[in-house]
Formats: sequence, structure tokens, C-alpha cells
Amino acid sequence: MQDFSFYNPTRIEFGAGKIARLDALVPANARVLVLLGGESARRSGTLDEVLTALGEREVQVFNGIEPNPSFETLMKAVDQVREQQLDYLLAVGGGSVIDGTKFVAAAALFNGDAWDILLQGGQNVTSALPFGSVLTLPATGSEMNKGSVITRKSLAAKLPFASEHVYPQFSILDPVKTYTLPPRQIANGVVDAFMHVIEQYLTYPAEAPVQDRFAEGLLQTLIEVGPKALANPEDYQTRASLMWTATLALNGLIGSGVPQDWATHMLGHELTALHGLDHAQTLAIILPEMLRQRKAAKLGKLVQYAERVWNIDTGSDDDKAETAIECTRDFFEAVGVKTRLSDYGLGAEHIDNIIDSLTNHGMTKLGEHNDVTPEHCRQILLASI
Amino acid sequence: MQDFSFYNPTRIEFGAGKIARLDALVPANARVLVLLGGESARRSGTLDEVLTALGEREVQVFNGIEPNPSFETLMKAVDQVREQQLDYLLAVGGGSVIDGTKFVAAAALFNGDAWDILLQGGQNVTSALPFGSVLTLPATGSEMNKGSVITRKSLAAKLPFASEHVYPQFSILDPVKTYTLPPRQIANGVVDAFMHVIEQYLTYPAEAPVQDRFAEGLLQTLIEVGPKALANPEDYQTRASLMWTATLALNGLIGSGVPQDWATHMLGHELTALHGLDHAQTLAIILPEMLRQRKAAKLGKLVQYAERVWNIDTGSDDDKAETAIECTRDFFEAVGVKTRLSDYGLGAEHIDNIIDSLTNHGMTKLGEHNDVTPEHCRQILLASI
Repeated sequence: MQDFSFYNPTRIEFGAGKIARLDALVPANARVLVLLGGESARRSGTLDEVLTALGEREVQVFNGIEPNPSFETLMKAVDQVREQQLDYLLAVGGGSVIDGTKFVAAAALFNGDAWDILLQGGQNVTSALPFGSVLTLPATGSEMNKGSVITRKSLAAKLPFASEHVYPQFSILDPVKTYTLPPRQIANGVVDAFMHVIEQYLTYPAEAPVQDRFAEGLLQTLIEVGPKALANPEDYQTRASLMWTATLALNGLIGSGVPQDWATHMLGHELTALHGLDHAQTLAIILPEMLRQRKAAKLGKLVQYAERVWNIDTGSDDDKAETAIECTRDFFEAVGVKTRLSDYGLGAEHIDNIIDSLTNHGMTKLGEHNDVTPEHCRQILLASI
Repeated sequence: MQDFSFYNPTRIEFGAGKIARLDALVPANARVLVLLGGESARRSGTLDEVLTALGEREVQVFNGIEPNPSFETLMKAVDQVREQQLDYLLAVGGGSVIDGTKFVAAAALFNGDAWDILLQGGQNVTSALPFGSVLTLPATGSEMNKGSVITRKSLAAKLPFASEHVYPQFSILDPVKTYTLPPRQIANGVVDAFMHVIEQYLTYPAEAPVQDRFAEGLLQTLIEVGPKALANPEDYQTRASLMWTATLALNGLIGSGVPQDWATHMLGHELTALHGLDHAQTLAIILPEMLRQRKAAKLGKLVQYAERVWNIDTGSDDDKAETAIECTRDFFEAVGVKTRLSDYGLGAEHIDNIIDSLTNHGMTKLGEHNDVTPEHCRQILLASI
């Protein structure tokens, strides 16, 4: 086990009807900005439920945070916060809305050009507005972590930042709120959560048996509940397990004391920024060939993954690794997320541009050994067509 | 999965040499009371290391918190805090010292008779002094939770309390600090952590697959590292896994959203209060026959425990449950904790008194179904001789 610091003060309120807890969770004198994505929170009645729970508080609404939340949009919310002297934020939505709210919370109190927050990865964030979230889409884990990823459309750049100042004070997780999500969003959520675990688990053996067992438990649960969540949208218990699993996949716990990879995410961000693919789609495309490309370096953990997660107990180590990689691809396809660039209309002619963009963003030494180069990424993309 | 609230703001600093972080973790102007158990922290040099890290701060030391920390002793620390106007506590020790420090933190700011905190289980605690801990003994999980158990010698009573106000602000976990512990304390720690998981896991199936997987992962890890930690006291990685596993066994995570038992703990507390047995010894005695007594109600989970934790895949459900119970007893014995009342010089003649004491403390409806009666407990003790 490596040395680590772990700190996660976000309060989780889990269960049907927990939105009513907002009255106890948000300060009585707060001047609140509720931040939304598209129209779904309004249409589904969730916004009304939130406004009712907030009672007599001064509340304004900011609408229109996109998937892959944009700097351009979020700066409008920052302006509203400053002009209206609002002092509490409430994200109502999925990871994009929560990521965007984290940026607004930090940018509202930031001196200077707020884009610098992204350029410095959040190290220059010294304070942020307090905020909470009402999660409607299990996927990113943003509801219980300090990370955020923001896209600047004008630069085709998608960059992460992290700061202890942007932990949500609370997050309300009501599985019922996921019943009306389109299958594509549930499928993306399953893949996203699965990939968060993989990035913190599938590296090299690091004498961290508890972290390994927890990671394997999350993967096994996603394999078990992912297809059920798609088949039975109103099965409360299945949606509850999916929701809590997705949160635990990226709340800092399983990544404490172990090496981490994140190469698939970094390469995937370029595909989203340049070609608009869903985040989870990019991960489903890249992971199988990333694992094949890095098979030698990851063999110990690939065999463990094969044996413990996929119950593959025959064949050579290489056989087990190969079978586990194909099981992973099949799982993504089974929940409806296509795993080939060509499935999204992309081919060899796009790869130079993707690699140039990756290089320009400084992503030239990726992975747990910092040895995944742009040339490796080119091979991975070629194999992923 | 049941509804739940989860909140745990304790910061963990994990690794060799992390005591040096105290200077950053304790406020610069704090007037600190360092609380100790016996002489081991002084003898081992840990106290010197702590005092060095605290630098120029005003620091006083309170010595002599016992195993099963007593109200009588702790009230002396409360007096010292009040008289000397100290405003920050630092526990240096194991679970008893940390439990005791939680009580001092709450009692120092409590109006009225501090014993009421125990009588009301902490529901009347509205504030507490801030405090941190330096953990030297992996066992109780107190370093990352809001619970505490205090003994009042004059009443032969051992009672728990819990409050969000007594979460440690931070806990420093340095596995090297465990190298010099006597084998008995390591063995007790393994059993204690194991039992914390069992109490939150071995109830009835509750459609909480992630919590189950996490619990099973903790149990598997304890079975793997427990004997190694005894055989090789200075194996850093083994001690690190034991330490982190014991913390995760009772930090609120695996118990969120699932039924909990705790009957074995409640009955065990009486054995400690009346006969002075180590806490872990009482658990090792009671659990096997508790499980046998409750086998029908717990069969679903007992079979899952047998299959997933002990890899028992043959025989009837009853066979699997019986084998798992004996594996559990064998594990406790293998790490050196005896599992029979007679091993500790106790026999049938003591049982009436234990049951009377349990009844007097109101512990008449125990377990996840509130249906474990004093008469059940009598049968369990008789079978445990």
C-alpha cells in the first residue's frame, strides 16, 4: 500500500423522498441558485419538489448546463451569482451539472481569469461557495468527490480540476429520480462507473488487498445490476445499487493507497472535445485496446481481474487476460454502448488530429507508469477502428 | 437497500512518518491536551515524536486511560481541560484512548451531569472540543467514527454513545507504530475488526450487493493478513492492510443501508464489565453459539458467508452454515483468542449474574429483528462454556 491522505466530508442522504431533507440541509437564510441541465428536471417534477422543499428561501434558477459543461455557459452563472449576491448553490442533475456547479462555486470567489482554475488543475482555488446536489443520474461520482471536468468550446479543450473546497456539502440520492432516464444515459452511467473503478484498479499489484476487494466488488455489482437496470427501469433496488455503486466508484476511497492509470480517460476527453462523443462512449472504445496495448505491464492485475471479476480460471495468464479484455468489451456492448470508432463514423483519417490535440494538452506521458506516449495512443486508436 | 444517511468528515493521514503532519493538522494557537493510555507511547518514543511535531504549542499530557476507559478516570481529564482552559485534544493510543477522548471532548462542553451523555446515548450532545488522534493499535475503528463506549466502574456498567460532534478531525495511521504491540493486542484487534464486519453483515439478505461485497472483502482480508501480522510483526505491508481494514470495518460505510445486529457486542460488554475479559475475548466466546442459536433467522446470509468468505461449496445449506461457524471459531483460535468461557475460568455458576446485568441495562430485545431475549442469551452462554 502506498501512503495516502483521505478526506471526504460530503453528507449522503440516500432513499426515496429524501429531497424533503433540503429544508434541513440548506441554511435557512441562504440565497440559493439552483443549477439545471436541460428541461428534464422541470418536466419530471423534480424541480418543483426542490423548490417546495426550499420553502421561503430566496431562490433563482440557472438553466442550460450542457453535457460536458462549458466554461462559456458556466461563466454566465458566475455573473448571475455575483450580480444577484447569491451565496448557496444547488446542483440538480447528473455529473455534468454537478461538475459545472463546482466550477461556478470556485469561480464566483476567484480573483482573476477563471480559466486559470483549469490551467492549474484547481491548485489555485482557495475558497468556494458552499453547495449541495440532488443527483438524478448515476454515473460520474461527482456528487461525492472534489473533481470536475470543464470544456472550453472555443479552444476545443476539456480539462479537469480538483480542490477540497468543492466537495458538495451534501448530496441527495433518490433512486426513483432515475426511473425516467433514457436507456442511453443509464448505459453510459454503467460504463462510466465501471471505468472509474478500472482506472484505479487495473494497474499493477500494490499490496493493497482491501482496495482490490472493494474495486472487484464494485465491478461485480455493476456487471450484475447494469443489465437489470436497463431491463427494469422501475426496479427500485436495482437502481439503488447502481446509484450507490457509481458514487463509491469515484469518491476517493478505492483509489487511496494504490497506483492509478487514467490514460483511457485522458485520451477519451480528446474524442469528446473534437467529435462530441458521449464520455462513456469514448471510454468503451478505448479501454479494450488500451488494455491489450498495455498487457505486459498490467498482466498481474489483468489475471487477477480475470479470475476474481469474470471467474476465468482456465488457460495461461495471457489467455486469461485476453478473455477478460473480451468480456469487458462484450459487457459494454451488452449494455448498449458500442466499442469501435467506426460505430461512431470515425476512421483512420481522424487519428492524426486526435493525437495532435492530446499532445497539445500536454498528455504525453500517461498511465500508472507515465509511459503511455502519443505513439501508443495512436496504435490504440488504430486498433479501435 | 434501506434508506440511509452517511457522513464521515475525519481526515486520514496514512503512512510511515505521518506524525510530522501534526504541525499542519492542529491549529497553530491550540492549547492541546495529549491523552494517553499506559506507558507504551512514552516508552516507544511515539510521545516524543508527537511533542516534537506540535512544536511551540502549549501542550499538557493526561496519562492513564485504561482499556475499557472509565468515566471515573476521564472526568479527571475533563477537570484538567476546564481548569487549564485547554481547547484541543489529541488522543495517542488505541480505541480505548480515542473512545475516552471522545467522551472528554463532549463532557468538557456539557452542561449537567456528564453521565447523562451515556444514559441518552449521546443524543444530548450538542457540541464538543475539536480533537485528532494518532492511532497505535488497529482494532476498534474509533479513529474514523462517531462512536464511543465508556465504563462506569462504580456501577459495573459499560455503555455506548454516538454523536456527529465527536468525529476526530483527523487520524494519523502509521503502521510502523504497531510493530511493538504485544501479540495479544494484535490478535484482539483482528477479532474486534472481524466482529465489527460480522455485526453489519451477518443478518438477513437486504438487496445491498455492494455493502455485502465490501464486508466480504474486509473479512477475506482479515483472514489473510491476521495470522501474517502475528507471525511477522515488522512486515509493513501486512500491518498496513490490517490497520486500514480495521478502520474501514467500522467507519459507517459497510453498515449504511443494511440491517445490523450487535447482539454479540451487547452481551460481550456484560462479560467485560463483570469479569474483566478483553473485549475481543468476549466476542470470540459469544459469536459461534450466537450464530448457532440464530441459525434459522440468519440462514440466507450464513450460506452466503460460507460460500463467499470461506469458499465452502458443498453440502446442504445447514451444512454450509455449520461449517462456516466452525471456520470462524477456528480462525479466532488460530490467531490466539480462546473461544470458550471455561478458557477464562468462567462456568455455569456465573451465568445468572450476567443475564441479570444484561436485563438491568435494558438489553432485552437484541439483534437485527429485536428478538434475541435474555433467555436466548442464557442458552448461548450455556453452550459457550
